[in-house]
Amino acid sequence: MSALGPIKALLRDVQSVLLVAHVMPDGDTLGSALGLAWALRGRGVQVRLACADPAPAILAFLPGVEGFADRGRTDEQVVVAIDCSDQARMGRAFEGETWQSVPLGVIDHHVTNTRFGTANYVADTASTAQLVLQVIDALDMPLDARSAQCLLTGIVTDTRCFRTNNTTPAELRDALRLIEAGATLTDVTDAVYNHLPLATLRLWGPALAGVRQQGDIVWTELTLEMLAATGLGAEASDGLPNYLSTFDEARVAVVFEELEDGRVDVSMRSVPAIDVASVARALGGGGHPQASGAKVAGPLAVARERVLAALQAAVRS
Amino acid sequence: MSALGPIKALLRDVQSVLLVAHVMPDGDTLGSALGLAWALRGRGVQVRLACADPAPAILAFLPGVEGFADRGRTDEQVVVAIDCSDQARMGRAFEGETWQSVPLGVIDHHVTNTRFGTANYVADTASTAQLVLQVIDALDMPLDARSAQCLLTGIVTDTRCFRTNNTTPAELRDALRLIEAGATLTDVTDAVYNHLPLATLRLWGPALAGVRQQGDIVWTELTLEMLAATGLGAEASDGLPNYLSTFDEARVAVVFEELEDGRVDVSMRSVPAIDVASVARALGGGGHPQASGAKVAGPLAVARERVLAALQAAVRS
Repeated sequence: MSALGPIKALLRDVQSVLLVAHVMPDGDTLGSALGLAWALRGRGVQVRLACADPAPAILAFLPGVEGFADRGRTDEQVVVAIDCSDQARMGRAFEGETWQSVPLGVIDHHVTNTRFGTANYVADTASTAQLVLQVIDALDMPLDARSAQCLLTGIVTDTRCFRTNNTTPAELRDALRLIEAGATLTDVTDAVYNHLPLATLRLWGPALAGVRQQGDIVWTELTLEMLAATGLGAEASDGLPNYLSTFDEARVAVVFEELEDGRVDVSMRSVPAIDVASVARALGGGGHPQASGAKVAGPLAVARERVLAALQAAVRS
Repeated sequence: MSALGPIKALLRDVQSVLLVAHVMPDGDTLGSALGLAWALRGRGVQVRLACADPAPAILAFLPGVEGFADRGRTDEQVVVAIDCSDQARMGRAFEGETWQSVPLGVIDHHVTNTRFGTANYVADTASTAQLVLQVIDALDMPLDARSAQCLLTGIVTDTRCFRTNNTTPAELRDALRLIEAGATLTDVTDAVYNHLPLATLRLWGPALAGVRQQGDIVWTELTLEMLAATGLGAEASDGLPNYLSTFDEARVAVVFEELEDGRVDVSMRSVPAIDVASVARALGGGGHPQASGAKVAGPLAVARERVLAALQAAVRS
């Protein structure tokens, strides 16, 4: 946990800023960056946005999302990493070698955050969007409807619409405040949850048919072949780890996904008694205690056995 | 819509009451009945509860849910139907012939409600639980934590945790008030969404593999054989109609499910522009404009063609 002072000082009199979202962006990193962008623009700050990967199609409704460049800085005075637990999460959108001299802010809610900025605001809310809301308040910036819509998207996506175990009354109160500021909840939930392409089922059908159980661990595997059959991008698997975690037998749920580069993306979910963030860190990844991931060396069968062994140890401990 | 006056008058000085939930009970009918029961008991009223069918296993956490009898009245002064759109929804828990003389209250949020009571409170909220909260307030009854937990369950289950298109700021505000009165959101969402038996996949796998599309309509069929393969009860299909409705191509989503008695249970979901309640009514069923159902004559193929034709007409109109 860290106090608001340093980030407030960093942004108070800034004229131009670059906001960087994390690789493989989700609703919280994009919504939080845009929410802050609209607030800063509202007080005359020149804001640029960068994200190494394109926004998922379901987030195209976010006002201003088309403004993200894949690499960003021209001559902004300050860079702020949004929802990034370490510097690597910014990917090629952050050119560390040439940017050494620029002040770097960090706004993030991951407990694994490495405090890699010169001014870090890290706290344990369910979404980074709520921390951006606190920064907006601390700087007495007005909260307009665009900003509110972007920030509400961050809360909704990171809590799976108030369903995660880390959803407290604070998340509901913040959401209600954003709605009262002009955000529309049904626009967010409709865009995020009601527009999956039917072709997704070509991946989910076999993935669900292939679910396996080993004690408290429930897992499935996605091959490159299965993904190719959908005709969709990598986002076709979004939501599958969370879905597996809803089964009673799954104290830990894991999805193993083959990547083009030969590595395997490992996405883990757990009940509160089991910490998968420590397993993810040991594998070179990161995340939250109940939702973490890592990219490990393939092939699939090798990655699976290695990760399942580590998880069995975590379940027993 | 109807005013609070009659139901308030009915309950103001009552000494004993029977609360009746609807057949095939869900979180809103059970949570609303229990929420009202705890409030009435708090002011010394003798309350009995009845529901023709047993509570689903995932709702076993509701305080007092074990108190429902499958048929109910002994000598209570008043009967109140909770979340029932017509008298038939009470099933055998309501013995109309012998109870003609008893005053009958109705508290319900279905737009198709037939006002079959002597005192009806029907209004267009996302859940009946919110109307019970209004009744509790109107009668100046205290709201305890048990009551709040039961009512929050009604809001959460009927809005799929704030995801339905009829979720307005009022639903969030009511939920927050219940949480402030002692309800715990994560207890509700964990029980309702995180404890599906893994055997459910034996039904969902084939059901999703068998999804078909006809223009704006996406549907699947569940046979008795598929259900038997799960080893689970009829609740194994709960959530499937909602899940189908999340696909982009599905302006209407339908699940056809074979019943033991040879009929077919038809469960329909739609986007706001299409009214499936009118189709359901024409088939002898009922529900909400965007979520309705009916039980129609089998066999499956006949039911399917009949319903798809009716839905195609509704989509075109």
